[in-house]
Amino acid sequence: MRLIYFVCALLLTASVQSQQTLNVYPTHWWAGMKNQQLQLLVKSPGIGKTNVALKPYAGVQLKGTHTFKNPDYLAIDLQIGGTAKPGELQFSFAEKGKSAKQVKYILKARDKGNGRTRIKGVGTEDFIYLIMPDRFSNGDPSNDKVPGMLDQSLDRSDIWHRHGGDLKGIENQLDYLQDIGVTALWLNPVLENDMPNRTEHGYAATDHYSIDPRLGGIKAYHSLINALHKRDMKIIQDAVYNHVGIHHFLYKEMPDSSWFHWWPSYTNTTYKDQTLMDPYAAAIDKKKMSDGWFVPGMPDLNQHNPFMANFLIQHAIWCTEEFGLDGWRIDTYAYNDLEFMNRCNKALLDEYPQLHIFGETWVHGVANQSYFAANNIDIPYKSNLPGVTDFQLNLYGIVPALTQAFGWTDGVNKLYSTAAKDFLYKDPKRNVIFLDNHDISRFYSQVGESIPKLKMGLSWLLTYRGIPQLYYGTEVLLKGFANPDGLVRQDFPGGWAGDSSNKFTAAGRTPEENEVFNHMRSLSRFRLGSPALQHGKMMQYVPEDGVYVYFRYDAKQTILCIMNTNDQPKTIAASRFEERFKGFSSARDIITNQDISIRDSITIPSYTLLTAELVR
Amino acid sequence: MRLIYFVCALLLTASVQSQQTLNVYPTHWWAGMKNQQLQLLVKSPGIGKTNVALKPYAGVQLKGTHTFKNPDYLAIDLQIGGTAKPGELQFSFAEKGKSAKQVKYILKARDKGNGRTRIKGVGTEDFIYLIMPDRFSNGDPSNDKVPGMLDQSLDRSDIWHRHGGDLKGIENQLDYLQDIGVTALWLNPVLENDMPNRTEHGYAATDHYSIDPRLGGIKAYHSLINALHKRDMKIIQDAVYNHVGIHHFLYKEMPDSSWFHWWPSYTNTTYKDQTLMDPYAAAIDKKKMSDGWFVPGMPDLNQHNPFMANFLIQHAIWCTEEFGLDGWRIDTYAYNDLEFMNRCNKALLDEYPQLHIFGETWVHGVANQSYFAANNIDIPYKSNLPGVTDFQLNLYGIVPALTQAFGWTDGVNKLYSTAAKDFLYKDPKRNVIFLDNHDISRFYSQVGESIPKLKMGLSWLLTYRGIPQLYYGTEVLLKGFANPDGLVRQDFPGGWAGDSSNKFTAAGRTPEENEVFNHMRSLSRFRLGSPALQHGKMMQYVPEDGVYVYFRYDAKQTILCIMNTNDQPKTIAASRFEERFKGFSSARDIITNQDISIRDSITIPSYTLLTAELVR
Repeated sequence: MRLIYFVCALLLTASVQSQQTLNVYPTHWWAGMKNQQLQLLVKSPGIGKTNVALKPYAGVQLKGTHTFKNPDYLAIDLQIGGTAKPGELQFSFAEKGKSAKQVKYILKARDKGNGRTRIKGVGTEDFIYLIMPDRFSNGDPSNDKVPGMLDQSLDRSDIWHRHGGDLKGIENQLDYLQDIGVTALWLNPVLENDMPNRTEHGYAATDHYSIDPRLGGIKAYHSLINALHKRDMKIIQDAVYNHVGIHHFLYKEMPDSSWFHWWPSYTNTTYKDQTLMDPYAAAIDKKKMSDGWFVPGMPDLNQHNPFMANFLIQHAIWCTEEFGLDGWRIDTYAYNDLEFMNRCNKALLDEYPQLHIFGETWVHGVANQSYFAANNIDIPYKSNLPGVTDFQLNLYGIVPALTQAFGWTDGVNKLYSTAAKDFLYKDPKRNVIFLDNHDISRFYSQVGESIPKLKMGLSWLLTYRGIPQLYYGTEVLLKGFANPDGLVRQDFPGGWAGDSSNKFTAAGRTPEENEVFNHMRSLSRFRLGSPALQHGKMMQYVPEDGVYVYFRYDAKQTILCIMNTNDQPKTIAASRFEERFKGFSSARDIITNQDISIRDSITIPSYTLLTAELVR
Repeated sequence: MRLIYFVCALLLTASVQSQQTLNVYPTHWWAGMKNQQLQLLVKSPGIGKTNVALKPYAGVQLKGTHTFKNPDYLAIDLQIGGTAKPGELQFSFAEKGKSAKQVKYILKARDKGNGRTRIKGVGTEDFIYLIMPDRFSNGDPSNDKVPGMLDQSLDRSDIWHRHGGDLKGIENQLDYLQDIGVTALWLNPVLENDMPNRTEHGYAATDHYSIDPRLGGIKAYHSLINALHKRDMKIIQDAVYNHVGIHHFLYKEMPDSSWFHWWPSYTNTTYKDQTLMDPYAAAIDKKKMSDGWFVPGMPDLNQHNPFMANFLIQHAIWCTEEFGLDGWRIDTYAYNDLEFMNRCNKALLDEYPQLHIFGETWVHGVANQSYFAANNIDIPYKSNLPGVTDFQLNLYGIVPALTQAFGWTDGVNKLYSTAAKDFLYKDPKRNVIFLDNHDISRFYSQVGESIPKLKMGLSWLLTYRGIPQLYYGTEVLLKGFANPDGLVRQDFPGGWAGDSSNKFTAAGRTPEENEVFNHMRSLSRFRLGSPALQHGKMMQYVPEDGVYVYFRYDAKQTILCIMNTNDQPKTIAASRFEERFKGFSSARDIITNQDISIRDSITIPSYTLLTAELVR
């Protein structure tokens, strides 16, 4: 739909040694990046009126500059050749009649993979744990309120106020997380959100190059990631390309108005992804979807502006290199300019082929969802997004499977049918599957607080195709309906000193909580050593009588999964599954370790997802 | 999945001048067909033991013969070269010690398009009327019961018995049909169904080369089609490739068992189309879907058997040429061997490029439905089917639009969203859209016998993308839920002498019936002269507040359609539709001919689909 200036201006490094109010974005760069273009955005009073010179530096060339309507901004295009060594670039900004301003900009040496040999990426071998940092654990009460920031709330009894959780708190719980088989963390955004309220979620950035001080700042983020990497655990950052907080410096003092989307009067996005793929869509409907604001407090970025696009893409590269990120989750994927997204994804994957990127696709239908991901559809717009947060296997999958009566298109038949549509994706295994997240009702509440159904959900999560993602606290029965969403963002009990119970410990959990917790832990730990569950193929059988059978298998191992969604036991004939049973004599229940005969028939108790390894 | 012998053996002509019990299929052929292969299947006691010779005939070669386990069958491969003239082939079948049997086989001259210059095909310019011949009109009471046939029932009070409708009855009503703008007839199958019961529907053929005598036989079929063609109306035949009636001669006396699908014990199809596209499907589930029987009384044909495949394909060509068919509707499309279907469709389209072919796809989801049609999906199986009976725009389209409360994914949003998924099809315009058919509940009943909603449905049918298809009697308020299906196959009132009312005439219709009838007739007749409705593009707007706006337009004409699904009037601002309103000053209601201002706002009464032509 839109023309995109394809200004090739990306990567490299620097850190500003400047007088008072001069800022350079990215704040530093690296020598030896694959992409040799870098566009610096310099912000300082009157900087746009200066003449820029770069002190000769082997391998580095100043290619040009750009001014904006706002004279307090200047963009500088650099080329950092492959021969450039780490060191300090020196710029001078000269204004007629004044002495030139000298600014140093650091080109760091690349630390491949931040202490590891390389960025590993996130794949089906992983188990992702999603944390809202303000609500998980408070490791450093000294940063709960930060003087000078707009939101001075601190009230754990109010879902809209800050609660004090931070990155140190997360680092403190890595033993807990590793114990339950978690291998990767996805944190809701950690960038500074210096907004007056509703700062708990982090989706309203005000400075891309600052980690929120209330979470511990960049030091705590580095510390957490280093601790994760030492444990061979991975980190996924949450990217928000679509919008910023209304207090972001780029909005408050914008280079020019074309960096944002404007409307004659406030115009919200329609949230209708269909307009993007619909062959019959009206131009205004497409525009409203993409350029309408997500909410009034979050200005919509014009990614069509090549400077804004560069700012966003370079920030993504910068974070990946600086923190050694293994993956990106992209917020509100469908609301971005999709050509921009392809360019951004490509820049990241060109530099880091191992990286995983998955986008939030809260849409309805596999056709719609696959439109936003790398797919098998020949259409003018071809997405290069490797994976998505698989809302279809949630909304039209595990949730109806466990909450609807079995019917021709209902109940577990929905789950079966949704998976059958995987033929639309290029690689559905790269999708992230989940029971719940920070925006939707807690799964335990959705299944009517049924312990057996929660256990079924968790077993499904850990045995189905894709990359499983658990939302913090689901393992200890946190509940709540997302009405409003704050109700599903409660504190993890035990994350705060003085909490009345500590669910991080067996002693702090009720027997019911331990039952679910241990069930999940058994399976998630088994999964860590299971080639079939981590990398195997899937085979599924048409559900019959509310019973759904699927397998995960490879040459070495076969895992049998039988989901009985009925309120009574069901017995199924083994003969139907000959294609997978062949060569095996019995099965061993992964949770109970008991032997199960697969000779004639198998009986599955009510509301049970039996998971068993076939034995020769 | 399956290997197909690609035996190139198709077209040509003959008509048997034989002694008592010798039959040849196809019964005749034509000189000058594009495909020069023809495989005759000869059926006669002991014919398999004979030596076959063809009396020299310029341009025709006997290429070989095939015997079967059953000696009463023989297949003969012929090549009918381009130079072969119409005439009579003469075969001799010689058995040791007996005098050779002489059999003549006619090669007819091709009558291009059966009285018209060519086969025209069926497209978006058409309005299809679907008739169940036993239930529409009884034009010839002398054929109501045919001595010797298995079903001797004749009882109009019983939905399962024959009612006496026939092809002559249909021919008698062509004035009526043409008057309401119908341009094409689709008849439920007219082939002989010599079955003991449930013969009303016609889907259990017992002889492919016999038109059911109770419908009037081949003479009445020719007569009807000639009458249609004289009026420039079109005919669509209903093809059943998947199965036959259990009394079909090929089943009662089969050439060998490989012509049918067999199971250790009776096995029904699962009716689960997902198994065909599912990347995770088990082999047994695919096999059950494709090779399981549709119902116990209809043996499932093995289209993988090259002789059976040729028999079916040649029959399709034969009918197209013999009757000058404009289109084929293919029954139970998903249940056929899909490689066979591609081969069959290709054979037809190679010979008749103008022909339309659309398959029944009673499945759930646009992804599933598009799998069976020519689509934009890069997957191992690529269908070449030009169009489908668009169940998605029914089940997830117009029905919920008029029966569900408006919601984020419900009500008219379903219709909007389903249409938005058209990007999956190669050419969605070739899909046939409908309110109801012989298998599903009457639309009038589905909308709670609401006259306004029925009128909305009819207006939608005649203004939406695709080829509209009306089911007989919907225009005069026939009702019924398909539980069982016989309840939606009632007689058209007035189609039988002595009927208490005659809905074919205005005087025979109630005021309510005339209201609906006239509403539809106005629009369907307008459509006949409307380039925008017949061939224009579509544009749709995101529904708001239960109001859905779409346009049909081309360079010459723009039609505005506003569907208000609310129980109260709604007013919408005109400014939103600037993209289509530009250059027009007002609109004229197609039904009432009244002017409508499009300057500021438009008010639409409750439960109304406003259709209006924009005026410059």
